Amino acid sequence: MYQLYIANKNYSSWSMRPWLVLKAFNISFQEIILPFPAERDTGSFKRDVLSVNLNGKVPVLLDDGLMLWDSLAICEYLAEQHPDQALWPKDVKQRARARCIAAEMHSGFSGLRNACGMNIRANLAEVGMRLWQENAELRQDVARIEQIWSERPQRNGFLCDEFSIADAFYAPVVTRLMTYVLPVSESTQQYMQTMLQHPAMKAWMDAAMQEDAWVNYLETYQQQQL
Amino acid sequence: MYQLYIANKNYSSWSMRPWLVLKAFNISFQEIILPFPAERDTGSFKRDVLSVNLNGKVPVLLDDGLMLWDSLAICEYLAEQHPDQALWPKDVKQRARARCIAAEMHSGFSGLRNACGMNIRANLAEVGMRLWQENAELRQDVARIEQIWSERPQRNGFLCDEFSIADAFYAPVVTRLMTYVLPVSESTQQYMQTMLQHPAMKAWMDAAMQEDAWVNYLETYQQQQL
Ligand SMILES: N[C@@H](CCC(=O)N[C@@H](CS)C(=O)NCC(=O)O)C(=O)O
Ligand SMILES: N[C@@H](CCC(=O)N[C@@H](CS)C(=O)NCC(=O)O)C(=O)O
Repeated sequence: MYQLYIANKNYSSWSMRPWLVLKAFNISFQEIILPFPAERDTGSFKRDVLSVNLNGKVPVLLDDGLMLWDSLAICEYLAEQHPDQALWPKDVKQRARARCIAAEMHSGFSGLRNACGMNIRANLAEVGMRLWQENAELRQDVARIEQIWSERPQRNGFLCDEFSIADAFYAPVVTRLMTYVLPVSESTQQYMQTMLQHPAMKAWMDAAMQEDAWVNYLETYQQQQL
Repeated sequence: MYQLYIANKNYSSWSMRPWLVLKAFNISFQEIILPFPAERDTGSFKRDVLSVNLNGKVPVLLDDGLMLWDSLAICEYLAEQHPDQALWPKDVKQRARARCIAAEMHSGFSGLRNACGMNIRANLAEVGMRLWQENAELRQDVARIEQIWSERPQRNGFLCDEFSIADAFYAPVVTRLMTYVLPVSESTQQYMQTMLQHPAMKAWMDAAMQEDAWVNYLETYQQQQL
């Protein structure tokens, strides 16, 4: 059975992607949560991750002695191992497009990522409004994402028709747009609704909401309420 | 026939990757160079790229009406289209590893990338020495790359035995280590030699050396000699 090492569901956007893919395609796996420490460079997180992966990062997938350590490579591996299921779209053109948009996410959008860290539990509407006014790179990243999403084949469907790895890669953006309440088009909101109704997405978000670990260095905009 | 849109060979690290893969596996393609403008936001580069790709970036691969716009997605597509050749290693474990290291490059190493832009023609040894002393993130990125490279199966071989997409992804690092003359281990130097002797790598570097276009905003460390 696969073992997937992830960090806190509230904060770990990279962990979310392969987890959603495994859940969405009903592939059974054991989930191992290594929670981020409360303060940077404390606790056992780094040591625990390093004991499975020299890169010191999650997610990590173990498959019978084989270790994979990057969210996109994990998803490609899963797609290969489960050829009967459409982890990538079956159609060659849709699949090419799905890979382009997933890879663009993998290497890009640092404006959005840096300004708006994933924090599913939080409501940062006021912070979001300020960032939106001040941060041109953030606005540009969101504009490009809205463009990609708007090119989906069906208004009430996923990025490449059925739910695929491409959607999993943009799932953390859906949560960020909610947390920071960024102003987006109706079409974008509809895609967000489609995603929020997906059972795998629901399961992750519900679990994130129930977490109570506070990771101070990822809470750029909030003070802990004691 | 494939058409690959790229920018200047001297500067465009993302363009280099799929180009090397096409060359190394003797896949015929038409190369279309859209040179970067001399000054940022001038000239026709952006307009020309946007006419093929809404993302406004190179590389872009056209295949009979299908457009792919990200270097990693392009390589995955080529691997699929040429299953007889080992663009990814044939062995499932080596392939998993190759994908992990390529994807890690795709999403990481911003310390190295930001400090040491690719500039094949330049000799920036003094700049490199200063950056090495000042920039901890750069040193950390190079250390991680040396670790990845040191795990190759054969000391005088490629990252996953035969030349594969994984090597193409690290090829720009080989040129950066030369341009900035960063201090690296003997094992790393040996891998660099292996890469520099590969015909596809040689062809790209020779062409880069012969370019004379000066792109001011990518020449962070040099003044143009008039
Ligand atoms: N490119 C990697 C990025 C992984 C990554 O940055 N993971 C974060 C958590 S979301 C991490 O483990 N950070 C811990 C650290 O850097 O100490 C992937 O796609 O898996
Ligand atoms: N993730 C993309 C990155 C492409 C990229 O950033 N390309 C650069 C050239 S090396 C570019 O076109 N820059 C032009 C611009 O941003 O205006 C890929 O892997 O293809």
